[in-house]
Amino acid sequence: MEWKDLDSRRCSVARAAEVVGDGWTVLVLRDLFNGVRRFDDLAAHLGIARNVLTRRLAALVDEGIVERVPYRAPGSRERHEYRLTPAGRDLRPVLLAMLAWGDAHRAGPDGPPVRVEHPECGAPVHVELRCTAGHVVDPRGPLRSVPAAPTP
Amino acid sequence: MEWKDLDSRRCSVARAAEVVGDGWTVLVLRDLFNGVRRFDDLAAHLGIARNVLTRRLAALVDEGIVERVPYRAPGSRERHEYRLTPAGRDLRPVLLAMLAWGDAHRAGPDGPPVRVEHPECGAPVHVELRCTAGHVVDPRGPLRSVPAAPTP
Repeated sequence: MEWKDLDSRRCSVARAAEVVGDGWTVLVLRDLFNGVRRFDDLAAHLGIARNVLTRRLAALVDEGIVERVPYRAPGSRERHEYRLTPAGRDLRPVLLAMLAWGDAHRAGPDGPPVRVEHPECGAPVHVELRCTAGHVVDPRGPLRSVPAAPTP
Repeated sequence: MEWKDLDSRRCSVARAAEVVGDGWTVLVLRDLFNGVRRFDDLAAHLGIARNVLTRRLAALVDEGIVERVPYRAPGSRERHEYRLTPAGRDLRPVLLAMLAWGDAHRAGPDGPPVRVEHPECGAPVHVELRCTAGHVVDPRGPLRSVPAAPTP
């Protein structure tokens, strides 16, 4: 069976792209990973229109990526903040792979703007391809996509 | 310096999102990685409107992700096919991280639709986080983002 014979939508990449295949959504996730959790803080940091941010957050809540958690600052009314769910935290490798690509191909003369460190030892974290037999896989080399048999 | 004090656009994730932060673009890249290279084949497999595909491919060429290469089938006029450049091939970990997320969180009862194999040994390929000190990094654990000093 050739790749072209597969249903383009029956694909984990396509399903992930439905969730993160949007520039604003990627930036919202990035800020949530970096501890920006309140609507006003997200809107101010991202420079995103409030109605656009509302829609992106609602979609992420619907997808089970983000949860809305109430909090109350002293003397003010109840508000909500946004936190990544476990499924949301599992998107970290997607963002780190994007970070690595941007560092390698869009960093400009100042070099990479941000370094992501392993908190336990302070060394920079990177994304690596490995196979389950333990080999490091060259990300530029050919890989083989093997479709599972379609359900009859 | 806090994350919120950083310029949201001065970020490798943001720069990568400008290139791949679009659902159709992700699917075009996925098909190019899987050897679908001709306009008509891409249009048919993706079920994408031809003008939308033209725009996505033109943007990828402008970004240096894809190159347009002429070919001529016997007896027909010259046509073009699309191939990933080295910068384009470097997006593979982004797509594999999306694949892993989709496999884990959107696979449904049939399980993952496609398995990506290391051609040299046939074992499935996955994305792993490691630090340069050699530790395997828990993707769900906290990481530290350290901004480089901004240029004065």
